Amino acid sequence: MEIRSEDLERFFTPESVALVGVPRSEFRLGGMSFLYKLQEAGFPGRLYPINPKADAILGLKAYPGLSSLPEMPQLVMLSVAATQVPAILEECAALRLRHIHVLSSGFAEMGTEEGRHLERQVASIAKERGLLVMGPNCMGPYCPSSGLTAWGAIPGLDGPVGVISQSGLITQRLTEYTCSLGVGVGKAVSIGNGAVLDACHFLRHMAEDARIRVIGVYLETARNGREFFRLARQVTRKKPIVLWRGGQSEAGARTAASHTGSMAGEKRVWEGVCRQSGMVPVGSMGEWGDTLIAFSALPAPGGKGVFLVGGGGGNSVANSDLCIARGLEVPPLSESTMEKLRLTVPQAGSIAGNPLDDATTFGDVGYLTNVLELAYEDPAVAMVVVDRLLPRKAYHMPPDAPDTNPEAIAFLDRMRPRKPTVFVVDSDGGDPELAVRGASLRAHYTRAGVPAFPSTARAAKVLMHLYNHHARSGHGGQV
Amino acid sequence: MEIRSEDLERFFTPESVALVGVPRSEFRLGGMSFLYKLQEAGFPGRLYPINPKADAILGLKAYPGLSSLPEMPQLVMLSVAATQVPAILEECAALRLRHIHVLSSGFAEMGTEEGRHLERQVASIAKERGLLVMGPNCMGPYCPSSGLTAWGAIPGLDGPVGVISQSGLITQRLTEYTCSLGVGVGKAVSIGNGAVLDACHFLRHMAEDARIRVIGVYLETARNGREFFRLARQVTRKKPIVLWRGGQSEAGARTAASHTGSMAGEKRVWEGVCRQSGMVPVGSMGEWGDTLIAFSALPAPGGKGVFLVGGGGGNSVANSDLCIARGLEVPPLSESTMEKLRLTVPQAGSIAGNPLDDATTFGDVGYLTNVLELAYEDPAVAMVVVDRLLPRKAYHMPPDAPDTNPEAIAFLDRMRPRKPTVFVVDSDGGDPELAVRGASLRAHYTRAGVPAFPSTARAAKVLMHLYNHHARSGHGGQV
Repeated sequence: MEIRSEDLERFFTPESVALVGVPRSEFRLGGMSFLYKLQEAGFPGRLYPINPKADAILGLKAYPGLSSLPEMPQLVMLSVAATQVPAILEECAALRLRHIHVLSSGFAEMGTEEGRHLERQVASIAKERGLLVMGPNCMGPYCPSSGLTAWGAIPGLDGPVGVISQSGLITQRLTEYTCSLGVGVGKAVSIGNGAVLDACHFLRHMAEDARIRVIGVYLETARNGREFFRLARQVTRKKPIVLWRGGQSEAGARTAASHTGSMAGEKRVWEGVCRQSGMVPVGSMGEWGDTLIAFSALPAPGGKGVFLVGGGGGNSVANSDLCIARGLEVPPLSESTMEKLRLTVPQAGSIAGNPLDDATTFGDVGYLTNVLELAYEDPAVAMVVVDRLLPRKAYHMPPDAPDTNPEAIAFLDRMRPRKPTVFVVDSDGGDPELAVRGASLRAHYTRAGVPAFPSTARAAKVLMHLYNHHARSGHGGQV
Repeated sequence: MEIRSEDLERFFTPESVALVGVPRSEFRLGGMSFLYKLQEAGFPGRLYPINPKADAILGLKAYPGLSSLPEMPQLVMLSVAATQVPAILEECAALRLRHIHVLSSGFAEMGTEEGRHLERQVASIAKERGLLVMGPNCMGPYCPSSGLTAWGAIPGLDGPVGVISQSGLITQRLTEYTCSLGVGVGKAVSIGNGAVLDACHFLRHMAEDARIRVIGVYLETARNGREFFRLARQVTRKKPIVLWRGGQSEAGARTAASHTGSMAGEKRVWEGVCRQSGMVPVGSMGEWGDTLIAFSALPAPGGKGVFLVGGGGGNSVANSDLCIARGLEVPPLSESTMEKLRLTVPQAGSIAGNPLDDATTFGDVGYLTNVLELAYEDPAVAMVVVDRLLPRKAYHMPPDAPDTNPEAIAFLDRMRPRKPTVFVVDSDGGDPELAVRGASLRAHYTRAGVPAFPSTARAAKVLMHLYNHHARSGHGGQV
């Protein structure tokens, strides 16, 4: 059976969904929780809970089986015991229902012969009858533009990020992370065991979806690894793929702990494959989200020279250290920039140069703007990191000093920066007020097209990824 | 002049402070902002602003000079032009005022001959007249127990952390970070140019202060480097020193950018010295704060085996990866622990073992408690990391599921964990509600004696530092 990329579109845009295996009342992960979440998220299509023993579930008419529905549902979600899945797949085939998401677990992931046998059955039925099966053992599709947001950020936000993942929970958190910063996830898919449709199918699908501009992938094992990497190599010429490789299963991680050498070797293999295929390797939730946000917003840098704008001597030193440790450069500014800076930067308590240590950048947005303009003109500068402070009680600013962040955001919203520019809004610690203001500020900056990160260390990681990707793909940068 | 450690105590516990050089009205960093902050913080002692042209400043009677004060102030803060400092120091000496904090900048840090000359004058006057001079060019002392909180977290919180730093802003943020999580900074000092009193003096002082249990140091250059490292080697046998080494000045960072080799070499030298002297090297604000908090709260681990408790397959894999990447181990549990776990961990959708993937740990505190007890009995487990979720709209939990975090905190508050135990409360992204709940939760857990970090990556870094320190100093662990 040939599976065309456009065949998968229906998974993300169903107008009617049948949920097979919804208990009458008990709330638990499965058909019931999916039905509940789809209602909560305001799914605009028709929902058909199927349970032969119920008349109505969560206020919706329930049906005894797929054959008794008033229409052909465009997507079928199965949440029944694993042993029942093959028979229901046969029923779907008989009814010409082709798009099936199998939530149920109890297949090969159990490590039992019965589980493996059931999974082989699923694969062979799908192949013989031409079914498109997502899973088993997965959360399935997520697509805010069609209201199909049963398990990621609710409400969802349509946007340029696509996600293909072997972990539902990790993808849930990723969608929350980026959506709350104003960067939407257009399509996500939790592929589970991938018995029929695997990462390759969805990579091809998202590569062909023009609205997806950057693809995040979380994989623990690569079925069809060779094909996946071959495909990735093609896709990364068009759009970046940010790959988070989870260690192998629990047993694998255990082995790794006692045989560090083999783990490192394994890691090196993946890193090598990443490099060859042009994927961007990341290693944590924060780095994954940060990098996807950055790629969705920032243009290609012309080099790896970063201009650091902020205040405080220690801050400036530490920020330089963090950028250089990551492989970036903090180059001297050109003489013409320096001449202009020397006219405005105070001699005592500030340092004109790169990093620029000048507290005026916090308090005067017009001044900050001029500094940014100088940086965009300076050939030594490829990227810009601006440190923003949250006004704090501990700081020695006049008690009536205004918070200039809103003005800065309004300015950036009008003037989209000409070189990759990111902000850092530090709000660490346990102070709820700082936490909420830091999070909101980062969201406001990110929505204004200027990704904002919680630390310079994280910003530096992301900019190095950006440089590496574009240097490799030849869209900018120099290797 | 011999300077005894106890002579420095007065800097942190003055009952009266004279501020020389407070402008009549204009608010700016210096005497005025210090006076304002001391009032705001409710400093309980007497404050004497000195300005020959004013009768009153900020509601306080102003005096024309030090000699006209109604008492001998126990601390003098100078915020006058650098050129005036030597004469005022002479005046202090004549009045037998010995504890002087020179805020003023304009000394050697200017890089001018005049600046260097003035700094030499300060040093020689202090030496000849037996003055104890902090600075110049620094924020000076900070001590919540005596209400001297002019520039760190306001309100401050007394506690076991001591800080010696060459950066005021970085120290301000550190105090905010730890204090807001409930871990107080008992004493901090921003030493500036250290013309008279340098890092060695304060390291000795804090080593001898029994209430300080862990010392954080931020240094960019080490005056008396040899002496500092010799001293550190002694101190780390008694209490941990967590050293953040800032790159050298702006020019140094620049050089480093074009000569990466020399930078790396430099870094290696410091790392070697850290290792030899037993200090714990860190590289960012977050890591500095996290590590100080952990050392203030956690006992010595008996090894580097970590037990990971949480839910979600991907989470478990990723958390193992992060710990192993940092040098920790994620060992198999002993057979007797496994027997007990197999009785309670569901077979489908969970994994009994290490990591433990069992969502029941989120929803049932009694269950989590039993799991922790098993871990404390198991000889394979030296440390524990517990993943806590913030209940989120995206999660498939029953809509009426209670948040069990308060119950878990109450439990931990009664039962202090028997092995180093930390929690992870992830709240990344820009959602203000998650941010505020994440920050509060981390603070509540940390106050209950269980440090809580925003990511497993950060928790793993800290636990590896803890293991390394104790393995080295022989208080526990095995090398």
